Amino acid sequence: MTTITGNLLVAGSEKRGTNGDFQAIEAAAGVLLPVSFGGANADDVEEASRQAWTAFNSYRQTTLESRALFLEAIAEEIEAIGDELISRAMLETGLPRGRLEGERARTIGQLRLFAKEVREGRFQELRFDPADPTRKPVAKPDLRLRNIPLGPVAVFGASNFPLAFSVAGGDTASALAAGCPVIVKAHSAHPGTSELVGRAVQRAVAGAGLHPGTFSLLFDAGFEVGQKLVADPRIRAVGFTGSRRGGTALMEIASHRKQPIPVYAEMSSINPVILFPGALKSRARDIASTFVASLVLGAGQFCTNPGLLLAIDGGDLDTFTTTAAELLPEVGAQPMLTPSIAKAYCDGVARLEQHPKVKPVASGKVGTKYDGRAALFETTAAAFLDHHELQDEVFGAAGLIVRCRDMAQLDEVLDALEGQLTVAIHIDEGDQDAARRFVPKLELLAGRLLVNGFGTGVEVSPAMVHGGPYPATADGRSTSVGTLAIYRFLRPVSYQDFPERLLPEALR
Amino acid sequence: MTTITGNLLVAGSEKRGTNGDFQAIEAAAGVLLPVSFGGANADDVEEASRQAWTAFNSYRQTTLESRALFLEAIAEEIEAIGDELISRAMLETGLPRGRLEGERARTIGQLRLFAKEVREGRFQELRFDPADPTRKPVAKPDLRLRNIPLGPVAVFGASNFPLAFSVAGGDTASALAAGCPVIVKAHSAHPGTSELVGRAVQRAVAGAGLHPGTFSLLFDAGFEVGQKLVADPRIRAVGFTGSRRGGTALMEIASHRKQPIPVYAEMSSINPVILFPGALKSRARDIASTFVASLVLGAGQFCTNPGLLLAIDGGDLDTFTTTAAELLPEVGAQPMLTPSIAKAYCDGVARLEQHPKVKPVASGKVGTKYDGRAALFETTAAAFLDHHELQDEVFGAAGLIVRCRDMAQLDEVLDALEGQLTVAIHIDEGDQDAARRFVPKLELLAGRLLVNGFGTGVEVSPAMVHGGPYPATADGRSTSVGTLAIYRFLRPVSYQDFPERLLPEALR
Repeated sequence: MTTITGNLLVAGSEKRGTNGDFQAIEAAAGVLLPVSFGGANADDVEEASRQAWTAFNSYRQTTLESRALFLEAIAEEIEAIGDELISRAMLETGLPRGRLEGERARTIGQLRLFAKEVREGRFQELRFDPADPTRKPVAKPDLRLRNIPLGPVAVFGASNFPLAFSVAGGDTASALAAGCPVIVKAHSAHPGTSELVGRAVQRAVAGAGLHPGTFSLLFDAGFEVGQKLVADPRIRAVGFTGSRRGGTALMEIASHRKQPIPVYAEMSSINPVILFPGALKSRARDIASTFVASLVLGAGQFCTNPGLLLAIDGGDLDTFTTTAAELLPEVGAQPMLTPSIAKAYCDGVARLEQHPKVKPVASGKVGTKYDGRAALFETTAAAFLDHHELQDEVFGAAGLIVRCRDMAQLDEVLDALEGQLTVAIHIDEGDQDAARRFVPKLELLAGRLLVNGFGTGVEVSPAMVHGGPYPATADGRSTSVGTLAIYRFLRPVSYQDFPERLLPEALR
Repeated sequence: MTTITGNLLVAGSEKRGTNGDFQAIEAAAGVLLPVSFGGANADDVEEASRQAWTAFNSYRQTTLESRALFLEAIAEEIEAIGDELISRAMLETGLPRGRLEGERARTIGQLRLFAKEVREGRFQELRFDPADPTRKPVAKPDLRLRNIPLGPVAVFGASNFPLAFSVAGGDTASALAAGCPVIVKAHSAHPGTSELVGRAVQRAVAGAGLHPGTFSLLFDAGFEVGQKLVADPRIRAVGFTGSRRGGTALMEIASHRKQPIPVYAEMSSINPVILFPGALKSRARDIASTFVASLVLGAGQFCTNPGLLLAIDGGDLDTFTTTAAELLPEVGAQPMLTPSIAKAYCDGVARLEQHPKVKPVASGKVGTKYDGRAALFETTAAAFLDHHELQDEVFGAAGLIVRCRDMAQLDEVLDALEGQLTVAIHIDEGDQDAARRFVPKLELLAGRLLVNGFGTGVEVSPAMVHGGPYPATADGRSTSVGTLAIYRFLRPVSYQDFPERLLPEALR
């Protein structure tokens, strides 16, 4: 069993951070957990960046096979931690065992999927355009192209996915797969979980004989380390999942560097669900039941949580809300990821409760002050259009039903929406013509469109887009889940008239 | 013969711009050409953007075949303008007939290449990941992915490529190929050429039966129209070739919009050329001769002009400079693209002449004040490292030789360089080992690496990268030349559990 030390993991070694101590909190009980974590200072950021830059030179030139083996070794090392990882994550996040075991499987599967992607090598985008010395008026040169990695990547652990989007999660896996060293800024909500995974990565780095600067893990209870990392000239891209405020702050830093860098921030989304008339007529109760289940899953702490429901006003929608209002009071309160997230959720729900244009539909069971109590509200399309603040994400199991007069008004609501991660439509056969007319608009609104489902399950797939127009993400041209995520960390280079020996091996 | 009117071309119609008049200038003589152009005002930008947004909805849903035919029709319409286009461009830009005829061929070829790319459809990045209802613990959904266009694109005509990177140049061709309507802000250095090409595009739009908002052309002698375009919420990406000041100003506007958008700005590059000892020893005179030819090509007004030459100090380098100093005085002065570019070039050369650490090597023949007189300088690596301003691009036929003590110091100079479009190395057999060690560093410095050549010829190829790390371009992950350029204007969308009828046709 590994012992959690609270030490920084800087390029193969460990050291005590001296920039302020903090402790993890047992999410469900609000009590401090033993072992304190030392925050990193500017020297630690400097050291991690310097080492990452040095490591970049050799790491990016590893063979595809050895890079794939390295990713697989990380997966094995995480598996080998065993139950300590799950039990520590349960304490720190309040998430139940089943969910965390599933998330571990997903994290490991994700690393292995990227190993496969690396072996296949398609991401290199190799292109060959041979010379033609006989071409007139000028001879055609030999041109070859491949993608190369951008450089060291700063990854910010996400509070809501302590494994799948933290230290060795999707951002780290895709950056390492691309050939970029990674410096992770651990989320302070689960530092112990982060250290356990960080040590697993560190062991895999050592085991693979890679330069130790290939990976570092830094702690910080505040924002300083993250800001310094994003400003460091050796960091060449950023992966972030978190709040809009945090994401836009990093975008601002990144765009004002001497050399601006891309920030891939996944920030906020209320994931509209549209209930079409036919579906609502024939299955209002069924949809209400699956909607409630999706709304409260993991205390609603998914980026893809269905926070907004659009439908035409009338008896069928009444059936839907009545059903939801029957089911919701049976839903137990669940611990939220941190006391501050619980408080922010509580405040967000209170804002809706006090909103003059919003009516409560139902609430879940009351819990402790560390729990999230599910809450469903409703409003009219006119009010929604008048009050932009009703688009603000309330992170947790809160939903808002928007009653629209007709499809034209629903369309108007869609036009007023900000960029989203997902949009789901619920339709029956008879709705298909109407739905079809909406699809082009929905494509512009979100990165993933679903039919008769909810976005809360995010498949790690070659065909997944977990991204969407700003402000859902900083860069709607990218996805943070699925194999396409690797392209975020690459850029093309063209080689003209290179003799065989000078070419990178893949281009010979 | 078309008559140039000076009118704005807004979405299928034309109108007189009322926001100030300006005239084109005969570049070689500095005299005003007849016909004045009316500048666009805020209403014109609004109208063009509104129409582009409306057009987007239908244009992006055109079939690949009809989009390809449209691109081919633009090519035909440009060809059909005939000699008026060449003679007008000659007057406005001072570029010689041969160059402009070549550029026209390139522009037409580029449109046809994108038509081919559209037909092949690879840019759609179609991905299919079928459902597996039997998967445990949860059924696997059906996922399909494709790229969709971003939306209307603002394109800024470039002064130095009045055809290939202006109204129907690479940015426009790739944006239209992607499915994005285009609004061009014509470069005020060649408004007549722009109008001729703009009318050709407008005819192709009409001929193809497309929504007229698919294309607009706006004039403005200043910056207002460009700034308003980039700030317009319906514009979703920007293509720009020009100065660093102009490009970074647009980046700043784009990043502070309510919804930030990508700016693909190709800004500045001094395109280092490295002469390795073996090559210098065996071919100093030959290389000097091809270098001088590349330096003065088109009065040096290429983004890829070789403005910096790095080599080890010694007798072989002396042979090189002596040869260049013999050849350069034979080079005639050539008219520059505009009087203000001629003045800026003259000022830049004067700054080098007056620089305490820079020595003149040779100059070309003296011309008029509208001409650029080629100029070659030298300095030491130590001075170059001390004076960052020696990295500033002097747009035109000015070059700076940097004498390095040894390879280690040359390496130091490389480390101090900003991002570039191209780096060329000149090597012999015996230099290959040394050169090989440099390649990884050069990959990080530029988007295209050349062996024994110069970057001034930019092949329109699937394997071309005309891009590079900031500040060479705003976004080093992209290219503005070659088929890969289309990817700048696309983003992925994932479709989950879509019934056949609702899927976009390509994904059925």
